Amino acid sequence: MPLIRSTFQDELDGVSQTLFDLSVMVSDSMAKATRAIMEKNLPLAEEVISFDENIDTIQHDLDARIIDIIARQQPVASDLRALITALRMSADLERMGDLAHHVAKIVRLRHPEPAVPDAVLKLVEAMGVAAEKIATKTGVVISTRDTVMAAQLEKDDDEMDLLHRQLISALIAPTWEHGVETAIDLTLLGRYYERYADHAVSVSRRVIFLVTGKFA
Amino acid sequence: MPLIRSTFQDELDGVSQTLFDLSVMVSDSMAKATRAIMEKNLPLAEEVISFDENIDTIQHDLDARIIDIIARQQPVASDLRALITALRMSADLERMGDLAHHVAKIVRLRHPEPAVPDAVLKLVEAMGVAAEKIATKTGVVISTRDTVMAAQLEKDDDEMDLLHRQLISALIAPTWEHGVETAIDLTLLGRYYERYADHAVSVSRRVIFLVTGKFA
Repeated sequence: MPLIRSTFQDELDGVSQTLFDLSVMVSDSMAKATRAIMEKNLPLAEEVISFDENIDTIQHDLDARIIDIIARQQPVASDLRALITALRMSADLERMGDLAHHVAKIVRLRHPEPAVPDAVLKLVEAMGVAAEKIATKTGVVISTRDTVMAAQLEKDDDEMDLLHRQLISALIAPTWEHGVETAIDLTLLGRYYERYADHAVSVSRRVIFLVTGKFA
Repeated sequence: MPLIRSTFQDELDGVSQTLFDLSVMVSDSMAKATRAIMEKNLPLAEEVISFDENIDTIQHDLDARIIDIIARQQPVASDLRALITALRMSADLERMGDLAHHVAKIVRLRHPEPAVPDAVLKLVEAMGVAAEKIATKTGVVISTRDTVMAAQLEKDDDEMDLLHRQLISALIAPTWEHGVETAIDLTLLGRYYERYADHAVSVSRRVIFLVTGKFA
């Protein structure tokens, strides 16, 4: 059945395309959320917060589409595995969107005060840069299925973990003079960036699994 | 094909049973993690930490079983929906296990010092009780598909959110005298309990979706 087969392949490609689109959106959202911190930019934070609904809708529609493909095409084991894996990737990407949204909400909560004091602003910016880099690479991995790049994401995640530890060290240092409330905000911010990178790594591990049949 | 049909029903029942078993395990893990905080009990914390691997293995095997059922049985739309939903519930339950593990790791990190100072011990205990209650109810919802109880879980989650806000208030109060590092631990602990309850609510919403076809 070459015709059906080809339609099916088109459908799989469409799923990959939407996963890639989602990766671009969540990368963009986290980049904007970080910029909102840097610039104390409330409208930008609001933009990230309201855009999260779009991400959720696209993810929801994608999941319905994937389930519909499974129901109609009754795929063989390897195609079924690809579609189930796509569902999991979509859940990871949706969660990355949530985490960008959480970062933006801290900016809104503290506005017009800065969410992040100058003392650790460079560190938080570096976490934002790392998050954007890892999300962009995740998009490339989704579209190219490049397992070498997918494996490299683990190193980018190590970099994020290092920045995260540096942030916690700054908060507990005797020189910290911004009080407990700001430390709480930064603990949560640090956790959001770290989890964001974890989900990106999870997406790339799933790509490795799809290509090699083995978990990274 | 009554015979195949019946085998299929047995397989679905088996999936539900394993989801229920997982709910019992993650409820037990969080109860023990909370008790480890209260008692400064390192061996109990270690038990929770090492048991998480069992939960991960059971979840992983369950997912493989579900995908195998889909591949072999080529289920119709409603059965397929039930199986995909089971995959999502298993991911939520696995994450609840992770969060119990995270709580236990804070106990281990601070031992022999207490992870939680006396000033907020009752509050953290109340979060632990709320978490256990919500996880136990989630198990009942999985086995009975009782949508009324599933909807009630939202209220239990509100209770958890209230306790969480009380905890943050205690940390930022001028009377807080335990420093930033302990505040960071408690911010993370609070977040773990809160996310644990969120995932339990997510499981019960999925049951409502399965029974009614509508999202709660």
